This record gives sequence, C-alpha cells and structure tokens, in this order.
Amino acid sequence: MRDLTEKNVTEAVLASLGRCQDQRLRRVTESLVRHLHAFLREVEPTPDEWLAGIRFLTETGQRCDANRQEFILLSDTLGATILVDAINNRKPAGATESSVLGPFYREGAPPRPDGADLSAGAGPSVRVSGRVVDLERRPVPGAVLDVWQTAPSGLYHMQDPSVPEFDLCGRFQADAQGRFAFRTLKPVSYPIPVDGPAGRLLRRVGRPIHRPAHMHFIVSAPGYVPVVTQLFTEGDPCLDSDPVFGVKESLVVRYLEDGSGPDGSPRFRLEHDFVLDRQKPPAR
Amino acid sequence: MRDLTEKNVTEAVLASLGRCQDQRLRRVTESLVRHLHAFLREVEPTPDEWLAGIRFLTETGQRCDANRQEFILLSDTLGATILVDAINNRKPAGATESSVLGPFYREGAPPRPDGADLSAGAGPSVRVSGRVVDLERRPVPGAVLDVWQTAPSGLYHMQDPSVPEFDLCGRFQADAQGRFAFRTLKPVSYPIPVDGPAGRLLRRVGRPIHRPAHMHFIVSAPGYVPVVTQLFTEGDPCLDSDPVFGVKESLVVRYLEDGSGPDGSPRFRLEHDFVLDRQKPPAR
Repeated sequence: MRDLTEKNVTEAVLASLGRCQDQRLRRVTESLVRHLHAFLREVEPTPDEWLAGIRFLTETGQRCDANRQEFILLSDTLGATILVDAINNRKPAGATESSVLGPFYREGAPPRPDGADLSAGAGPSVRVSGRVVDLERRPVPGAVLDVWQTAPSGLYHMQDPSVPEFDLCGRFQADAQGRFAFRTLKPVSYPIPVDGPAGRLLRRVGRPIHRPAHMHFIVSAPGYVPVVTQLFTEGDPCLDSDPVFGVKESLVVRYLEDGSGPDGSPRFRLEHDFVLDRQKPPAR
Repeated sequence: MRDLTEKNVTEAVLASLGRCQDQRLRRVTESLVRHLHAFLREVEPTPDEWLAGIRFLTETGQRCDANRQEFILLSDTLGATILVDAINNRKPAGATESSVLGPFYREGAPPRPDGADLSAGAGPSVRVSGRVVDLERRPVPGAVLDVWQTAPSGLYHMQDPSVPEFDLCGRFQADAQGRFAFRTLKPVSYPIPVDGPAGRLLRRVGRPIHRPAHMHFIVSAPGYVPVVTQLFTEGDPCLDSDPVFGVKESLVVRYLEDGSGPDGSPRFRLEHDFVLDRQKPPAR
C-alpha cells in the first residue's frame, strides 16, 4: 500500500475494507468510496476547490441545531431525499404517494380532538376532511394523522420564537369509519432558508427557492405501511419548480370556496382521502 | 417537474441547473448529483440509514473547530485527499513526490535560523539536512521549508494545551547553495483521532488507525511548483497500512545513528534533498 497513484488508489482504499465484519457497512462504504472517487476523477478539483468543498460541508454541519437540519435541506435540494423516498416507497397503484419529510418535522405533536381548529380564527382557513382507507376503499379505523405546516409568515413553529411550540401542528385520529376532519390556516408558498450553505448553493446555481404551498402529513395505522406525504395547492405557481422535487400530481388538491370567517377572511374546504397499503406479513 | 420517480428524478435535478451562469459550478454540481444519485441507487438506503448518514455528516461538521478539521480527516481516510493530491501533482520523474497536507497544518509557523534545534534537548532527536534543488540538481537558493510534526505524545501542538503554539514547527530558509539543516525530535507513529465520526468509522470497518511516523514539509521557492509532502521513517511497521494512504517509497527515509544527546537519548541524522519542478510560464 505504498506508491498509490491516480490509477490504483481506489482499489487500495477498497482493499483496506477487507476486514470489515459488518457486511452492510462494508457494502455502503465501498460504494461511497467508488462513487466519491469517480466524482473527483471527473471534476478534478483544484486544492482550493477541494478546500471549498470541505468548508461547505463543515458549515452545513455547523448550521444544524435543535431547530434546523441543514444537511437534510441539502439532501432535499439535491434530489437525494426524494430518490431515497422513491426507493423506499414502491407502492401499488392507488395507494397515496409519498413525498419528502423535510427538515421541519418534529415528533411529539399534541393529540387534537376530531374537528379541532388549529387556525385560531384569524386569516384564510380551510376545513380539511376525508377518510383513511385501504386499497379496496375499506375504512382504516383509528388511523393517526400527524399534521404540520407553516404559518402565513412562511415559518414553521420551531423557526419562529413568537409562536407556541407545535403551532399549526397536531395529531388527529380517524373514527371507526376512517373519517377525520380539522380546520387550519390555508398554507402559503415560502422560501427555503437561504442564510445557510444549502440555500446559498441554490441561489448560486440560479434555482428557484420557493416551495409551492403544502401541508405535511404522516398517516399511519397498525398493520398498514405508513405514508409520509404532502398535499399541494392546485394553481400554485411554484408547483413545477419545487426546490425539493416533492410534487406529485396525485397530491395536488383543490381548495373549494366556503364562505368567510368571523374576521371576514375567506374560508375553504378540502376533501382528500388517504389510501394505505397493508403491511406485508414478515417473511418466514 | 411533477411525478418524479426513481427513473426520472436525476434528469429533473440536472435540468434544474440549466440557469446556472457559473459554468464550473454547474459542471461540479451536475457531477455531484449524478454520482450521489448513483451511490443511492446502488446501496438503496433505508430511511433509517439515510438519517444515520445525515447524522454522521452533521456530527462531522460539528466536530470541527479552530484546532480540528474532521471533514479533512474523513477525506483523508476515504482516500479522497490523496486522489485530489495525485490529480493536482502530475510531476515529472525525479521531482519530490507529494503527500497529503493532513488536518494539522497551521499557517504562520515562526521563521527559525539555519541549524535551529526544535527538540529542546530532550528525547531521541535527529539532525535533518539536505538541499533544495531543481530537476538538474542545481541549487534552489532561498527555498523555504515549512516543517511540522507531532511530539512524542503523538499530538500536534494545537492538540495539546500543555505545549506552546507552533511547538515542533518552523520555517527554515535554504542558503545560497540550497542547503538547509535543523534538529528536531525523532517523529513517532500515532493514532489518528478516534473520538469523532471519521475515526469511529475507521474502527467499525476494521481498519488500522496508526499513521507511520513522519515529518511534514511544504517546500517552496519563487518560480518553482511548491511541494506538500511528508518524510516517513524506514522500518516503521505502519508503512503499509497508513490510514490516510500517504506513503510513497521515495519518501521513506533512513535515520542513521549519530551518538547520544546530553540526556543520554540517541541521536540520529537524516540527509534528504527536495527536488522542485519549475513553474510553467503562464499560457499566452
């Protein structure tokens, strides 16, 4: 393992993994080394470019804290997250399609009663209702819907110290017929954070930074494959330029006008059914 | 750009770079996306594995500070650094070969007089001397040698709060005949830091963590291509298992016995010439 050159260095690094006992870790590390080296051979970075890459990754890690995950944002904007999502969600036709989790999911949203109003009565709001069903359209009683979205400010609760924790978030449980309903604010289009490395890269390569308006859902029930997904607003001008590549036609939903609220703001209603696939029995 | 699938997502991400004005950035980002996606398609990470990857990168960034660069260490241990080094140092035969800079170089080492003793008189020491010459063995007068190494503790100065800044470091200037000389401690083999993600990965894949004993050099002179390199100690048992893949046969040097010092410690001498290639004139 001396005199490694451009030609033989990759084989030498792969050979150094020969004593790895964890076969999965070995396979992943080998693949990482091969693709990383292929990338470097292709772009032939100068020492300054290599150092710029080191600094970019370092800053990305250092931008992460309890309320922000810049590496997830980077993975999202490079299309890596939606690819991993697609690989892990090869579903039968008819099942609700998945989309990216995003960097702003926080576990532990409070349970809310059926029909609860998350909107606090101010601003354009929407009544979201529907059913959780299986592929044969039979109800999935007691399914849980974990819901989160931005405020009209474009910020999630953990990004805005002026709002309570889990603002515009909640866990709803479907009834015996799989029905659920709640009221929330109509979601808005918002820019991904551009004060960190991931957003800065997006701007430097000339890509749009606004996500189309959407609500996030994780829908789950015992015995069914849970789905992490989003519902996008029909007509949003950003539907075809989502910086995280998350839009699917089947997830674009129509908001129907539904009068106005106590403060005069327009009200909408939205009907959507979530279709879960049964979990396969474990292999024998 | 809706309904992205495993099949078409990579093309969609590449298409999103179409407005990038910086052609180099565009080429590097396109290559990164293609190789990153190819890696993900090959290993098909589960959501938990993907998240473990996100956390690994995050921790790597957060391990970096003024005295530690964990992403450089990771690049070193994956063979990425030595590959970038090889790509950027395609030298004519006879020129001193390069090796990795490593994460422990700090700019600004103090100038030391010719013949200076960095060893402070304690422990096995070595007088390093030689010439800086060109490919025709003509002297390179006034060449500068930036030198750094670990103490017998296995630590570089910035890793050990009990030693002065730039301990066992110095900048030497060759004389009119290209000659230089200094005394320092005989370098020792040492483990790379394993209390962070890069070292932890090395251990989990069963790779050795000890670097063979070496001294670091950057040798430079106006009009010549500077060389970043290391001199390794002949006979070191780690020469063929360097965790950063830096050893080259031409950089393995012999320490000759040379009596003993005031404290009874053995003394050595080491003669080595550095051969610099002339800088090419700028293209017209």
